[in-house]
Formats: sequence, structure tokens, C-alpha cells
Amino acid sequence: MTRKELIQAARGERPLDLLIRNANLINVFTCEIYPADIGIYGERFALTLPAGDCNLEAKQIIDASGKWAAPGFIDAHLHIESSMVTPANYAAAVLPLGTTTAIIDPHEIANVLGKNGVRYMLEASQDLPLRVYLTIPTCVPAVPGKETSGAAFNAEDIQEMLTWERVIAEGEVMDYWGVVNGDMRMQDIVEAGLRSGVTIQGHSPLLVGRELNAYAAAGIDNDHELREGEEGLQKLRAGILPILKLGSFGNHIRNILPTIQQVPFLEVALCTDDVHPHDILTKGHMDRVIREVIAHGIDPALAYRWASLVGARNYHLKDHGAVAPGYLADMVLLDSLKDVHVTDVFVNGQYIAQDGHLLQPIQEAPVAINAANSMRLQQPLLRETFTLQAPIDEGNVAVNIIAYEPNRLTHLETITVPVKNGNLQLAEIDEDLCFLTVVPRHGQTHPAQTVVLKGLGWTHGTLALTIAHDSHNLLVAGHDPQDMLLAAKALQDCGGGIALAHAGKLLGCVELPLAGLMSTKPVEKLAEEIGVVDKIARGFGIKATSPALATVGLTLLVAPHVRLSDTEGLFDTRNQKRVVIFPEF
Amino acid sequence: MTRKELIQAARGERPLDLLIRNANLINVFTCEIYPADIGIYGERFALTLPAGDCNLEAKQIIDASGKWAAPGFIDAHLHIESSMVTPANYAAAVLPLGTTTAIIDPHEIANVLGKNGVRYMLEASQDLPLRVYLTIPTCVPAVPGKETSGAAFNAEDIQEMLTWERVIAEGEVMDYWGVVNGDMRMQDIVEAGLRSGVTIQGHSPLLVGRELNAYAAAGIDNDHELREGEEGLQKLRAGILPILKLGSFGNHIRNILPTIQQVPFLEVALCTDDVHPHDILTKGHMDRVIREVIAHGIDPALAYRWASLVGARNYHLKDHGAVAPGYLADMVLLDSLKDVHVTDVFVNGQYIAQDGHLLQPIQEAPVAINAANSMRLQQPLLRETFTLQAPIDEGNVAVNIIAYEPNRLTHLETITVPVKNGNLQLAEIDEDLCFLTVVPRHGQTHPAQTVVLKGLGWTHGTLALTIAHDSHNLLVAGHDPQDMLLAAKALQDCGGGIALAHAGKLLGCVELPLAGLMSTKPVEKLAEEIGVVDKIARGFGIKATSPALATVGLTLLVAPHVRLSDTEGLFDTRNQKRVVIFPEF
Repeated sequence: MTRKELIQAARGERPLDLLIRNANLINVFTCEIYPADIGIYGERFALTLPAGDCNLEAKQIIDASGKWAAPGFIDAHLHIESSMVTPANYAAAVLPLGTTTAIIDPHEIANVLGKNGVRYMLEASQDLPLRVYLTIPTCVPAVPGKETSGAAFNAEDIQEMLTWERVIAEGEVMDYWGVVNGDMRMQDIVEAGLRSGVTIQGHSPLLVGRELNAYAAAGIDNDHELREGEEGLQKLRAGILPILKLGSFGNHIRNILPTIQQVPFLEVALCTDDVHPHDILTKGHMDRVIREVIAHGIDPALAYRWASLVGARNYHLKDHGAVAPGYLADMVLLDSLKDVHVTDVFVNGQYIAQDGHLLQPIQEAPVAINAANSMRLQQPLLRETFTLQAPIDEGNVAVNIIAYEPNRLTHLETITVPVKNGNLQLAEIDEDLCFLTVVPRHGQTHPAQTVVLKGLGWTHGTLALTIAHDSHNLLVAGHDPQDMLLAAKALQDCGGGIALAHAGKLLGCVELPLAGLMSTKPVEKLAEEIGVVDKIARGFGIKATSPALATVGLTLLVAPHVRLSDTEGLFDTRNQKRVVIFPEF
Repeated sequence: MTRKELIQAARGERPLDLLIRNANLINVFTCEIYPADIGIYGERFALTLPAGDCNLEAKQIIDASGKWAAPGFIDAHLHIESSMVTPANYAAAVLPLGTTTAIIDPHEIANVLGKNGVRYMLEASQDLPLRVYLTIPTCVPAVPGKETSGAAFNAEDIQEMLTWERVIAEGEVMDYWGVVNGDMRMQDIVEAGLRSGVTIQGHSPLLVGRELNAYAAAGIDNDHELREGEEGLQKLRAGILPILKLGSFGNHIRNILPTIQQVPFLEVALCTDDVHPHDILTKGHMDRVIREVIAHGIDPALAYRWASLVGARNYHLKDHGAVAPGYLADMVLLDSLKDVHVTDVFVNGQYIAQDGHLLQPIQEAPVAINAANSMRLQQPLLRETFTLQAPIDEGNVAVNIIAYEPNRLTHLETITVPVKNGNLQLAEIDEDLCFLTVVPRHGQTHPAQTVVLKGLGWTHGTLALTIAHDSHNLLVAGHDPQDMLLAAKALQDCGGGIALAHAGKLLGCVELPLAGLMSTKPVEKLAEEIGVVDKIARGFGIKATSPALATVGLTLLVAPHVRLSDTEGLFDTRNQKRVVIFPEF
């Protein structure tokens, strides 16, 4: 398609490729909804006119009477790795739901495979009908010097990757304390983004006041990591665009929107961030986010604007996010405005999905990824790897532990634990305690770290994962070192994934051979497998939306307030300092 | 200022340079207004906090109790040449009124001096406290092949100039019929802009329907040339951002806003486009536009948003247009929200103006401009230059004429005129008729063109101008060829400007030696001089807001519907065709 042909098609000097007639167009510029005819030529919209205004000629005509037409949904921030599938399988799952553009931050795979991981995501998303843009991970690892992952990106690495095709932003700047405290590395990384003129994604849970001002002054453009309404309000006012999230973790629509709704003029973008396979299938994707926004009283046309044009503009994506002449022809038809029920999906002017099904299967890109290398443990796994030696042989000892709270927060707690033969007797305490061990798996030579965890409802059993944000070392939680060893070995053998054990038996295993993070199976199949292990984990007493993934955030050193580091052990994330486990010793 | 220092200042680890306390901050992100303390470090805002929240340390503190703080006003489209002063003198006039950013299209001077003219505007605006961005004129001349000016820009010329510093857009694409009709030159020029990723300014009065869709499909981003409400609505819906204008010509706030106000979500930018010196001094600048917007019932905070952030974003000016951490510290204080009375102006963190006066005089940049060359007439000026020979010696003849309408429109009219000795006897008709002659002044060798004009109320006298959009040839209107010759010669001698004559006497002359368009005098002095000639022109019976400039648009071949071309004579601008003056011959 040349621009000249497009102009001719708009003027009627050349037949349209596709004409959608009588749709109720959701105009995201004016937030009006009115009956319109929509003409597509090549990969762009050629024109929109009041329905019936012109007798338009077209190669294909679709009558959309009774339906609404909206721009394809733009997910303004997400990690495909969180859905544990390849980009192709991700596209196959979300396209029929109306998500046509995904702005992905490949920082999970980057923490395991470095630039090769970013390159894999780029190549694997190259020719998909889903429009995929990349943000370059800025915090690999999230907190350098305090944890180790499979790679370390400095400003030069990032500068290089910012020149790659389809790269539009620096990914979430999670080390927000580094930025606010003037850490030189973060300074350099953010300035590389400023120099390149790309958008800079923020990530600063609970940041307010002068510190928030400092973060904004650094040049941060948006933030999808909000925990409180007042925080959201302060970010709005500071010019940091909130990207309200509803995925498998957190619900900003419920928790943040009611507070920020009070301002006279509200502009936000929307995202899913992390969605588990089962949630995509049962709850939806961006359609769900919009539905929830409308359910909270936002005018539907405005909600669709947030889900399209606002995100596009924040990332300087010209010609994206609207059904309008010259814009890329990404569009959904819906048979309900408020329930956001998508019936037809068009991308680049192509008819992609109908009634929840792809019209053509999506081919997996033939790109190489060195998965066999991702379980690079340098020390033999032993029973001792998973024990926490008490500083006394017998008696009681004070222990600093991670106490889990709802809303994915944690705090430090000190409890007293009986000791026998030098071993902590967690079972003797009437609390849901277990051990939590992180084992380096990226070729590091230092030993594993073990702490005590409380608050997940855990009564028995072991859960091992190679998903453990953000460094994705091997994370094993349980009560019995022997079971923990068993589950860990199972993952070492299969290239990573999720393994559960109890009483000397391996009870389940989901293989995630791509970097220990992603399956090669489609979303439906993977969701089934995870359903099985979720059920087992729930049987352990684990209380979480996805019990088999309950621990994945406990190693995230940029989340409040206390987490587990593979080099530091127990770690205070606010002060960025190691915490002694036995405060009396 | 380094970014690190800015962050430190935000955190309180380094004193602010300037602290504005207790201002009612107009937050253009949320459209809230609340008491705030505003901290500036170097050329940027470091922080804004609820008033009194922090005990901030600063080198200078200003108490703004009882005042409002808004981002400095961004004029989203204007021609400095229309104010007939240098960029330095323009800055001196508009800064105290709160305009801190001017997005200028130097297409008047480009039509006279070509790239040297653009370069002059760039250099002359280099170190001003006014933030000046350039758009590159796309239509030099406006309608190639149908008129001649002092230069002709092709796509390559424009591509080159798009790489110059402070260039952010392609200037108004006035040859909208060229774009819509697929004219190759305009196609190439617009595509050069698309390739460069810059904003592309539109200019398409009265364009609606399929033609408007075609114009939008070409990649046009905004349009400041609106004539009717319905047209404005259609542009909004097509994703072309309306830039509502209120300057010396036209009032979009009165004529367009009431219609487009009906949409649920309204986003527009604001501009002045062309403002005469007297109007700046007596009516205002962007302050006046905002005042008018508020008077039409728009929420004041939203009006200030339109005057700042909306324009900045349409031009991808990051960090411009808001009082927020990290943004460039361009700000105004006002002692009335709705009257938009500016008391204090800050640019780049510097205190620039107070109570209508600059705190430091603005220095004229020492840049070269070859003004002596701008009157390059190739043929001697004679009495005959200014006559329209009738095709008969005696009797009555039908004459096609330009009939002037209010709202700067014109139409073609045919009248019957008595002829004596081969001369049209305009005086014998009871209408406000006069002759209108355009004389090439850019080195062209073709003869002058003369037509008959009606509708300006003109009864006697001659008005000669070297301002005649957009080719700026020498335009002389009057009744007596001898007077017309006299006035034209006066301008040839002084390097261009405005000259008036009657009954063999030169009655007044305003010298505009810079390209025949601009004075070297300050706005106040020039306004005085123009006031004198306006009074004389009003005495001629000319009915126009600025009588001495009443004819400047009559050569504009991209304005509806009939105009005067220096090569074609009488010209139908819709069909882009010459019109015979004597239809019976």
C-alpha cells in the first residue's frame, strides 16, 4: 500500500479492500458513539463516514449493524513470560479477546538469558498478527550487588538494544530507590533513555511526596505499579501517567480508580502486566480490564480511549490506537458495549479472529533459544542445601522471618522458635511457617540462602519453581529438606518449571524448558497442567489465587518490604540492606 | 544543571534555586487547582507539593499567595512576520503576556528569501528567553505553477531543513487540494515529514467529508484553519487536532467552539496565527485566547491545559507544557484565573517579566539578513503597470471581479462596467470598486496583473503593500493609476512596507526593510506607525479591522474562492484555474 493509494481510496478513486458498514463507532478522539461506515485500504483505515453517507465500493463488505467498533486494545505493559508461553501462543490466546497491540517488557527472560533472551522475544514476535513492541529491561538484575541473575545490563547494553527494531521504551525502572538516591548506574541507564528520546516506564510502589517528585524529575513517563489511591493521585499530578492494571496480580481498577476518579480530568492507560494462562482463558485479557473500568462508572467511550489512544500516545506510537483515516487498521467489533464482548478482530486491515476463534492458525517462528543452558547450577543439590542451621543446639531462638500480607506486601517479623539438635522446629509453632530456599541457577558459585516464611497458610508439602522474580534462581519452599531436594532435582533434570513433592514423592511437575520460564505448549494445554499443580498446592494449605505460583514474588528485591536475596539472604528492600536472621547472635 | 542535581534538589539534598510558595497551582494533568509550593532548580521544575507540606530551602523565595500558577502558554501555530517585527521584538512583546513558547512557521519570509529566510528566523530566535520552535514551510510557493515567489522548496529542501535544530514539524500544508488530488510534489513533501517523524501541520479551510478523510489519511496531524463548526467537528473526529485560533484574523472561539463543545470529550490546542502589533498591545496574545475560551464556558483549568500541554504533546515536545517535576520551568503567575491577567513570567527557571514589563531588555541577535535585495523588480514601474485595458473602446462590458465577503472569504461576481477610451469607469458605478494590481518583486520578468475588487468599502485613495500572502509580491490597490505608481515607487525605494497615496500625494509610509515584511522597530513604535496609516486607510472608506492591511490575503491562492495570482491574474482557488476577466471576449 502506498500513501497515494490510501488517499485515492479515501476519495473513492480506488475501491476499498474492506468496508465495515453500520457499526456504532466508538470515536476515541471525541468519546462519541455514532453509526458509521469504516473503510480499510491495505493496512490502514482510509476513511470513516456517518453510516450510509456515501455509496462506497469495496472488495469485501461486512455489515456490522447492532455492533460497536473500537480500536484494537493496546496493552500498555506486560510480560509474556508471566503467561509462561511463547509469543506465538500468547498472540493466539489474546487476539480473539481484542488485544491487538502488546507492549512487552522481556525482563524475565533477560534475567536468565541476557541479550539473547531479549533477542529471542524480538524474533519470536516478528511476524505475528499481534503487534508487539518491546521495552528494554533496565533492571537486570533488579538490584545489582544485592542479587545475581543470568545477566547484568549496563547503560551501554541498554543503549545498544534501544536501537533495535520495534523497541519503543525503557522497561520498568524498578530500582526506583536507586534512581531517587542518585545511584550512578541507574542514573546512566535513565539518561540513556532520555538521550534516545524513548518513553521511560516507571515502577515505584507506594512512592509519594518528595521521593516521588525526585523519581518524576528523573524523567519517568508512566507507572503501572500502584498500591494506594492517594499514591495514584500523586503520580497523576506529577505527570507520571498511571497505567491501571488488572491481571493475575492486583486490581488497580478496584483499588486505585475510585480515588483518582475524583479529579476533574482523568487520563490513564490500561494494562494486564502479568496474566496466568488460566486467567486469560476464564477471565479475559484487556477486554476484562475495560469491563472492570466501565463497571466502576467510567463512561464506556472513555474506557475504550484509555485502552487504545492514551497508551499509544504515551509511547509516541503515531497512527496507533484509533479508528480514523491514516491510522493502522487494528479494530474490534463488539456485540456489547459494557460487557466488552469482542466478536471480530482486525489487525493491519486483516480479518484475524471471529467469535473467539482465530481465522488462521498462528505459526511459531523458527527461532533458536538455548534452553538447555538455563539450569546452570554449579553446586550439587544436597539435603543441606535446604536447611537453616540454628545458632544453638537446643532451646529457643529468636528468628527474623518474612511475614506475607495480602496485596503482595510483606513485613519483617521476629518469632521465637524451639531448636532441637540444631534444627529449627517450625512444626511446633501454631503458625503457617515453612522454609524458603533460593538456589543460584545461573552459573554462580555461591551457596543457597534459606529463611523462614509465614502467612501463606502452608501446612505441609514442598513447592519448587524456576520462576522467582526477578533473577529467577531456583526457589524452593517447604517443610522437609528431603522433599525440597527431590522437587529441586526434578526441575534440574527437566530444564526448569514447577515441581511439587510431599512425603518423599514427586506429586506434580510442569515443564517450562524455555529459560525455565516458558512452555512450548499452547495456553489451553498449559493452563490445564497448572490447574493440576494448583490443586495440589492448595492441598498443602497454600492460600493464594494461584497456589502453585504463590512464592514467585518473594525474591523481588524492589517490592516492599522484606524479601529473600540469593546473595544476601533475608533482605530489607526499603533500606536495601541484609537483615540478620538470628538477631540475638 | 545535571539530572542528578535536579533529583537531589527534589529530595531536599540541595537547595532549590527558586521556590514559589502558596500558589494556586493549575494542574494541567488533572485539571485540579490547589495550593502548592513549586520548586525550581536550574531550568527545570524539581518538585511541586501541597502548600506548606515541606519546609523547603531555596536561594530565592517568592510568596504567590492569592495568585494562580499555570504553565507558560504555548502558541501552537503562528507567523512572527505577521507582527512585522523581529523575533527579539516579538519576544519582548509577548513574554510579559505569558506566551513562553512559540511554534513559528516562517513561511512568509521563506517566500521572499527562501532558505536564507528560514535560517534568519532560526538564528534571530536562538538565544531569546522566548522558546521558539520552527516548522518548515511546505508550500513555498503556496500553489506552484500558479504563482511565483522568491523561492521554491521541494521535498529535498524540506528534508534538509527538517534536520536543523529546533525544527519540530512541517509547516501548514496549505496546498490541501494538491494533497487530496495526489499531486506528486505535495505527496513527496508530506512523505518527507512522515519519514522524519515530525508533526505535520494542516491548513484546509472548509474541507469535510471524503476529501477531509483523504487529507487525514495523508498523515496530517493538526489544523488551525477552520471556518465552520461542523467542519471543526469532522476534523476532531478524523483525529486532526483543531488548533483554535484567535488573532487579528478570525475567531475560532466564537465561531467553532460552540459547535465542537457538544462532544463528550474535547481536546484542542490554541494559537494566534497572525497578530498585528496593535492587537498584541491592546488585546493581548495567548492570554486573550484563553480568556475567550473561558468566556465561552470552558472550565478554566481545561482552558489552561489546551494552552500548554495539548499543544506540546501534539508536537512531541517532551517535558513542555506543565508545572511538574522534570518539566522545563516555564510558568506564569496570574492574579485572576478567568481574566487571565499575567503578573509574573518564568522561562527556563529564569524570572523574565513582572507586571507587564521585562526584567531585562532582550538583545537583538547580531545576524545577517540581506534586506536590500528583497525589492527585486525587473521591469520599470509605469502608469500602465496599474491599468486594466478594456477589450472595447466605448460602451459597457461584463467584468469578472473579486467580491470580498466577511470572514475573509471571496466569491466571483460579474458586473457591467462602462468603458470610455478603452478605460473602465469604475467611478460611475455605485459600488465600492477599485483596481488591484500585483507586481512581481522577486526577480521575475513577467508583467503585472490587474483585476477589479469589490466589497471593502473603498471610495478613493491608493494602498500599496509588499505584504501579500503568500508570495509577497508588490500589491497595489486603488482608483488612480498615477497614485498607484507613486505608492509603489515609494516602496521600491525604501525596501518595502506599506504606502498610501491620494491625489498625487504620498500620505504615509511604514518601512519594513526586512524582506519587505518586517520592521526593525519594537512593537510599540511600529504599532504607532501602523495606527497612522490605518487611520488614513480608514479615511479611504476601507472597512476592515486593519484597513492598511485589508488586501494582504487577496493573493492567497489556497483560500476560498477567488484571488489574484501574479502569473494567472484572476484565479479560481477551488478549481485551481485562471478565470477570464472579460467573459464576453
